[in-house]
Amino acid sequence: MCGIVGYVGTKQAAPILLDGLSKLEYRGYDSAGVAIMTDEGIVVKKKKGRLEKLSNMIDGGDAIKGIMGIGHTRWATHGEPSDMNSHPHLSQSGRFAVVHNGIIENYLKLREYLTKKGFEFISETDTEVIAHLFEYYYNGDIIDTMIKVIGKVDGSYALGVLCADDPDSFIAVRKESPLIVGLGEGENFIASDIPAILKHTKNVYFLENNEIVVLTKDDVKIYNTDREEISKETFVVDWDISAAEKGGYEHFMFKEIMEQPRAIADTVNPRIKDGRIVLDDISLTADYIRDINKIYIVACGSAYHVGVVGKYVIESMVRIPVEVIVASEFRYCNPLVDDKTLVILISQSGETADTIAAMREAKRLGARTFAIVNAVGSCIAREADDVLYTWAGPEIAVATTKAYSTQLTAIYLMSIYMAQELDMLTPELLAKYIKALEKLPDNISKLLENKGEIQYIASKYFNSKSVFFLGRTLDYAVALEGSLKLKEISYIHSEAYAAGELKHGTIALIEEGTVVVALCTVKNLFDKMLSNIKEVKARGAVVIAVAEEGHTEIEKEADYVIYLPKCDELVMPSEVVVPLQLFSYYVSSLKGLDIDKPRNLAKSVTVE
Amino acid sequence: MCGIVGYVGTKQAAPILLDGLSKLEYRGYDSAGVAIMTDEGIVVKKKKGRLEKLSNMIDGGDAIKGIMGIGHTRWATHGEPSDMNSHPHLSQSGRFAVVHNGIIENYLKLREYLTKKGFEFISETDTEVIAHLFEYYYNGDIIDTMIKVIGKVDGSYALGVLCADDPDSFIAVRKESPLIVGLGEGENFIASDIPAILKHTKNVYFLENNEIVVLTKDDVKIYNTDREEISKETFVVDWDISAAEKGGYEHFMFKEIMEQPRAIADTVNPRIKDGRIVLDDISLTADYIRDINKIYIVACGSAYHVGVVGKYVIESMVRIPVEVIVASEFRYCNPLVDDKTLVILISQSGETADTIAAMREAKRLGARTFAIVNAVGSCIAREADDVLYTWAGPEIAVATTKAYSTQLTAIYLMSIYMAQELDMLTPELLAKYIKALEKLPDNISKLLENKGEIQYIASKYFNSKSVFFLGRTLDYAVALEGSLKLKEISYIHSEAYAAGELKHGTIALIEEGTVVVALCTVKNLFDKMLSNIKEVKARGAVVIAVAEEGHTEIEKEADYVIYLPKCDELVMPSEVVVPLQLFSYYVSSLKGLDIDKPRNLAKSVTVE
Repeated sequence: MCGIVGYVGTKQAAPILLDGLSKLEYRGYDSAGVAIMTDEGIVVKKKKGRLEKLSNMIDGGDAIKGIMGIGHTRWATHGEPSDMNSHPHLSQSGRFAVVHNGIIENYLKLREYLTKKGFEFISETDTEVIAHLFEYYYNGDIIDTMIKVIGKVDGSYALGVLCADDPDSFIAVRKESPLIVGLGEGENFIASDIPAILKHTKNVYFLENNEIVVLTKDDVKIYNTDREEISKETFVVDWDISAAEKGGYEHFMFKEIMEQPRAIADTVNPRIKDGRIVLDDISLTADYIRDINKIYIVACGSAYHVGVVGKYVIESMVRIPVEVIVASEFRYCNPLVDDKTLVILISQSGETADTIAAMREAKRLGARTFAIVNAVGSCIAREADDVLYTWAGPEIAVATTKAYSTQLTAIYLMSIYMAQELDMLTPELLAKYIKALEKLPDNISKLLENKGEIQYIASKYFNSKSVFFLGRTLDYAVALEGSLKLKEISYIHSEAYAAGELKHGTIALIEEGTVVVALCTVKNLFDKMLSNIKEVKARGAVVIAVAEEGHTEIEKEADYVIYLPKCDELVMPSEVVVPLQLFSYYVSSLKGLDIDKPRNLAKSVTVE
Repeated sequence: MCGIVGYVGTKQAAPILLDGLSKLEYRGYDSAGVAIMTDEGIVVKKKKGRLEKLSNMIDGGDAIKGIMGIGHTRWATHGEPSDMNSHPHLSQSGRFAVVHNGIIENYLKLREYLTKKGFEFISETDTEVIAHLFEYYYNGDIIDTMIKVIGKVDGSYALGVLCADDPDSFIAVRKESPLIVGLGEGENFIASDIPAILKHTKNVYFLENNEIVVLTKDDVKIYNTDREEISKETFVVDWDISAAEKGGYEHFMFKEIMEQPRAIADTVNPRIKDGRIVLDDISLTADYIRDINKIYIVACGSAYHVGVVGKYVIESMVRIPVEVIVASEFRYCNPLVDDKTLVILISQSGETADTIAAMREAKRLGARTFAIVNAVGSCIAREADDVLYTWAGPEIAVATTKAYSTQLTAIYLMSIYMAQELDMLTPELLAKYIKALEKLPDNISKLLENKGEIQYIASKYFNSKSVFFLGRTLDYAVALEGSLKLKEISYIHSEAYAAGELKHGTIALIEEGTVVVALCTVKNLFDKMLSNIKEVKARGAVVIAVAEEGHTEIEKEADYVIYLPKCDELVMPSEVVVPLQLFSYYVSSLKGLDIDKPRNLAKSVTVE
């Protein structure tokens, strides 16, 4: 996830681009850059760090004169945050400048191809292939070239492209990644999101996938990939800027919940090639994996809960013992670590102090370290032996949703990868697991459509004093996350229990009206969950059950049932967590709390 | 723990003994028996099962005529519950009948000695050696014989002995195990506890250790081991019977908390011989232990929390990986079990359904099973490959206290034993650990004396809505138990957290006045705990800290500090839990709840 903005008009472009980018910093903030069409051709300025650093470098924009340009604020995916990896990227001759938001899944293949053709790459990004592709295919017709380029790339993208031959217009396109067109008076814009241009105009076009747009100061023309011109309806924005930054939603958390299908697809799709899991840059060989005597998964908070899922999945699939441990405990528990131990670290920010300390201790003890991290170039990403990035984009709400979901996906990928490398999966099973991963975004989209039902349930119980989340095995792992989510943003004391354990003490807390959320998606334990539901119902509990479609017998026992689309049991946790996120969100909303910034909490805990 | 009663007077003895035993069933109920002095000599009747079975067998006592006798209700320690192992035990010739409450620690050595002298043993009990010792040393003078016998035995005992040569009097003694004398009109009594005789008299003697008492219907004489007669003060009981059953305390839970020093001593002392841990009947050899690839500790509720301590202790001491898992999850998590896996099962009752099912699954998968159980002859004790009994005696309160404490002790014993067998301990270290175990009862007794302080703190916060228990490593393990205890009997929603993990979400629940119990006894983490205390204080929490004597710097941060006697870190959890048990007890008491029988809970959960 990154933010892009483009301008053509009569005013100085650079200050306008900087101002627009400042409204998009929620989409990324590890580096920023602009490309301006000047009298001497395209000038690119870019800088690692927050936007402010770039702005200082170019005197708030005054240092570069020109009335057309593109800008970018980055959230690193390929290549760590650095000046070099920042956007815009230039083609070899400097004729094209490109800003990109998204992930080019086949960039390694394209890079290889272009290298053979004599192109030299100076960054580690996936985006640079696009700049070179433009040059490679350029025949004097920019629209024709764009059609050729996007025909070659797989993945998601919103692109803004300057061509030195064309001082009065620039071109843009999008697929899966967002891009809007702003229609001004004698000036026109592109942007990843409305707030970047709202100061200048309220009239916008929403682009569909692969609609190509050519902008001059007085005109905006849109084409499909058959080069036919398309007419679009103008949409008049009536939001204020703060709502707009949240994609029209009231809170970042809600926006991020809704982004999960896309975030999961971004994390999964580039890792699947020709029916196999391909983890570029990961150096775990089959020989190494075969020798592992133990895997520790070390993390904090929600990332720890991902580890609990990971333990089930990895142990079931590759039969290597896994221990999940909270990072603050790892260092002091005398862990049984040697050079055959793999320590998996999970952290959204890659800067979690407890996890960093645990990583260093694990290395000191001789373990190999493997990080699952969202922020490219962060401390954990730099120091771990291997990194598997989640491509969730920046997460602004303190309570994690899409980062958790993509971490889950990364754990599935890693587990399947290890099993695949060890030849422990039949081709059929491998295909089944991969299909399950690929189907997830659609299933979750479907699930998100039923949010009204969850809002209704929340409206009845948002005043609860205590809430319990029950589940067995994989469902228990998700119960932990559901419970933490509710705690974090609603301040209700909730707690997760392995359903069979409740009767050994905690059932004393169940009284008339206590809300119990019962997760019942593990098929061979469905009947046991029905018994557990009866136990708490007998003590007066109100039961909200979560079950897979078709298991309607549960309606006889539970007060409410939330159904999930059918999917492979392996990835079911990815579906189960979604209604729990929504439930917490609505409860907090109904209580009128500060959802995105709950009391006492920080987004990334950089103290031990 | 067992119950004994004795009568001499003018009425029929058997019905009086049965009635007395019925008041002592809380001390044991796996079998019962009586010995009556009849015209044809001593007649013994005994029966496995509840007292009622014995009573039916002898027509409520009418079937045996005689005006002197002794009776016993048993809680098995040595030898499973059976007719044969029931008391009274007869000496070889039948001249002596003995009832015993306690544990003869050197019984194996004595048994061997007596066997060489031609005595034949027909039961598996430790008590039978006493009957034979009486016969072996008997010289016509019963007092002299008693002095010789008790000079030979180590351990705890309350004894009642009939001698066929003496139709008008019987003899009794006690050490560590309780015994009182009831003084009637033309009749006298002995009993383990007052309720057994309260119907007949309110005048009693409390016997000190090794005071020998000889009773006839008209007289009671007491001697010391130098055969000097002692005069005792008569104590007049003013309790009602229900209070008396609880040893004068208001609730069984409190009585059981107070019994912990004794219960721990009973579990530890017999297992220490000549400076080494000796686990009779346990077949784990050094070769087997060396080959173990993994230990699972499988349990439910409080016993699971013992396992969490066990993981730290065993991993630190013998470096074998340990996984602690709740029994209801074990079967369904695809555990990595093979014939080199040791599965430790912990259960007070030995009848916990989830744990039984887990044990059977572990055996099916080829694991060796090792049980830590309180109830001799229970299902788990019978089916596990090895059993290490906790000798806590029957626990009546639903919320466990002394069973938990003795389970902890058993885990220490087992861990030290494994390390000792593997030669992983220097003689100094072994001696240090053993000394730490032996010192525990005294330390806990000291701790219990300060209960008023905890009652005071409880009185200030018993109306709390949520309570959090924080600790790191071993302290965290005890925090889990402290939290469950509070939940079970006070219905306050409490929760335990690894102290470093709180800031990753749950700290959102801390607000002005929230009670946080901070356990700070792990020395190298003391400073980190101080920081965690500051974190929650900054959000308004009231902090009750638990720390080792001498760490007074904590008083600057915490609102209240409970100090514990210094002891080896290994066994510190045994001390830490005690103030938490008392805190829960007092909170529940102040809320006026049914402490011994909290809502929704059963003592032993025999359903899955």
